[in-house]
Amino acid sequence: MTYIEQLGANAKAAEKYIANAGTKKKNEALKAIADALVKNTDLIIEQNKLDLQNAKENNISEVMQDRLMLNADRIEGIAQCVLKLIDLEDVVGSVEYGAVRPNGLKISKVRVPLGTIGIIFESRPNVTVDAATLCMKAGNAVILKGGKEAINSNKCLTEIMRNAVVSTGLPADIIQLVTDTSRECTTELMKLNKYLDVLIPRGGAGLINAVVANATVPVIETGTGNCHIFIDASADIETAVNITDNGKTQRPSVCNALESMLVHKDIAEKFLPLVKERLDNHKVQFFGCSRTKEILGDCVTLATEEDYATEFLDYKISVKVVENIDEAIEHISKYTTHHSECIITENLSNAVRFQNEIDAAAVYVNASTRFTDGSEFGFGAEIGISTQKLHARGPMGLKELTSAKYIIMGTGQTR
Amino acid sequence: MTYIEQLGANAKAAEKYIANAGTKKKNEALKAIADALVKNTDLIIEQNKLDLQNAKENNISEVMQDRLMLNADRIEGIAQCVLKLIDLEDVVGSVEYGAVRPNGLKISKVRVPLGTIGIIFESRPNVTVDAATLCMKAGNAVILKGGKEAINSNKCLTEIMRNAVVSTGLPADIIQLVTDTSRECTTELMKLNKYLDVLIPRGGAGLINAVVANATVPVIETGTGNCHIFIDASADIETAVNITDNGKTQRPSVCNALESMLVHKDIAEKFLPLVKERLDNHKVQFFGCSRTKEILGDCVTLATEEDYATEFLDYKISVKVVENIDEAIEHISKYTTHHSECIITENLSNAVRFQNEIDAAAVYVNASTRFTDGSEFGFGAEIGISTQKLHARGPMGLKELTSAKYIIMGTGQTR
Repeated sequence: MTYIEQLGANAKAAEKYIANAGTKKKNEALKAIADALVKNTDLIIEQNKLDLQNAKENNISEVMQDRLMLNADRIEGIAQCVLKLIDLEDVVGSVEYGAVRPNGLKISKVRVPLGTIGIIFESRPNVTVDAATLCMKAGNAVILKGGKEAINSNKCLTEIMRNAVVSTGLPADIIQLVTDTSRECTTELMKLNKYLDVLIPRGGAGLINAVVANATVPVIETGTGNCHIFIDASADIETAVNITDNGKTQRPSVCNALESMLVHKDIAEKFLPLVKERLDNHKVQFFGCSRTKEILGDCVTLATEEDYATEFLDYKISVKVVENIDEAIEHISKYTTHHSECIITENLSNAVRFQNEIDAAAVYVNASTRFTDGSEFGFGAEIGISTQKLHARGPMGLKELTSAKYIIMGTGQTR
Repeated sequence: MTYIEQLGANAKAAEKYIANAGTKKKNEALKAIADALVKNTDLIIEQNKLDLQNAKENNISEVMQDRLMLNADRIEGIAQCVLKLIDLEDVVGSVEYGAVRPNGLKISKVRVPLGTIGIIFESRPNVTVDAATLCMKAGNAVILKGGKEAINSNKCLTEIMRNAVVSTGLPADIIQLVTDTSRECTTELMKLNKYLDVLIPRGGAGLINAVVANATVPVIETGTGNCHIFIDASADIETAVNITDNGKTQRPSVCNALESMLVHKDIAEKFLPLVKERLDNHKVQFFGCSRTKEILGDCVTLATEEDYATEFLDYKISVKVVENIDEAIEHISKYTTHHSECIITENLSNAVRFQNEIDAAAVYVNASTRFTDGSEFGFGAEIGISTQKLHARGPMGLKELTSAKYIIMGTGQTR
């Protein structure tokens, strides 16, 4: 048995204890984890410093170093997120459908945990705790594979969680970390169908594409968002400027941030200078079509096909002036990552048409794409935003970390 | 653009017409298909004869030849199945969740078609019509890849369906058949992520495993069933004999048929001779443990590990006498394909424990596993029985051929 197979077998053996633990026990374990994280703040910071040291030696960017860094405040924040899970409704065991069939069979469809979930993620060590505790609340065992940059932090956080879990009488192996960060281990994890029920990659497009291409375990794709806004001819200009500004600049590094703006030709001359002025506050770079350049001048870089396809995650935006809503829908359909798309319009039939024809997890009329988020939608915590159509679409909360089972009670029925 | 990519692009272009067709138009198209199939009975039989001819020349088994064969009755039966879809509720557009958030955002979660579905299946040409029309009623485009043995029948059936669809004003390309049956084309189809939203293999374990191993498109696994029955010490003997007989012999070739029987040691001496007597009516072969052999004698073949792991789909059953329910659950957990499992018991706590701890799509107490079926569960038609935990579990009807989309109406909200 290889190292990865051993982790899988451990998880499968532990799975039933967390699946049948019940809400009270799971909440006790969450409380124990939150407490232990805060209590071990110094230890975590010490181990995190090793990762930061390595990051500096390897000339990793400042942004990445910041994502990697843990301090007392951030650890407190992570613990608070764990505590919030306690209040969320436990969906395990809830009955989704029930019927007595004509032959007397009583059929219930109940929610059950998925089983064992694999999470492959990149450098932010908060994901280690976040993903493990969400999976746990939904009754699942979890195998975590973080980035090698965060290995010391992740080992430390995982050990703290495992000890906390054991202190409440649950087996440690409901939470495991892949400590061998070699590429071979990652590949093996992606093909561990015997033990893994689902694999969720969390990270950039590169990671997600690699997982989709190589995994044989069922995958849920999350989080790439080349999000568009279409400013229709009838748009309220102030609304259009506010929402574009919010979508692009409030937090440009996240998946629901705006990346591209389409502007109806009849409103372009009025709207573009106003939005440019507002976005200048954040020095947003414009990559536009020739008409955009005509209106706004040389500050606009002529956009390439690639610019329109790029999720910048930065103070950059691609812009195109379009003939009509048809061209807007066509453009979006070509470049969408099926995450969040928005129309600003006062025209009812265009609003309805946009929401019908755009194929994305969330389609907005007159509101910012930044709202595509589990807690903004009212679902509490989320494990990610699904951009695929199978299993879950949009923000995935606890319910999306469960499956269903049919329970049938008979009295001797045969066919 | 390759041949397969062209099919994908065709489907994507046609997709929105079927997605937005509405129930009335879709039902018109279903009626047109059913009528056209009956009207073209002679043509279908003629083309089917070519396949049967080839099958004979290639020494394909009688059973397979029978599965391949179409006659007027069977074509009428296929058309009837299409007509039944008309009465099924159209789930597209139904609202699953709705909320007004504190900031005034109105969020609705509506059911939408999956998009384009790929179906890879084996020799039975009825699947061609069945799968295409189910996908269509759920608002999807479909790309069908049948077995090469049925290529002439499939071409003919597909052309009839495409013409019928066009006669109602929908584009032909909502239904396409891969006419190049080479392995390369199948492999390409499995990796057609740009155009395919889901891939559903329908067929034996070999086909399904090949798709799972090679596909990068999200897959729904269906239909392998190594189904068990556990006869507990407290079982009502008559119920146990009836249900075992029904599960094993009513239709042994299907996925919800029984393949394996576990018998509590305290009831084995009484139960085994009675069930043997009943199964002798169908000359069922027993592959049993040494204790089974002691009780039933030399008619029992000593079971190997492989026998316990085999989905016979035949008049054969594996048997094991177990110490207690723990051993039964352990054995099932080792060999289950997560399809349907059954306990026969009068003991309440054992019934509950079995239903909690067995990890399968359908878990039965005192009823036959043969009931795991869309129409028996009250869902109408089904595209297959999902044995995975993602997206759908158990019988998959129209709802499981859809996804969801969040529609958000705002009045200028920003974060």
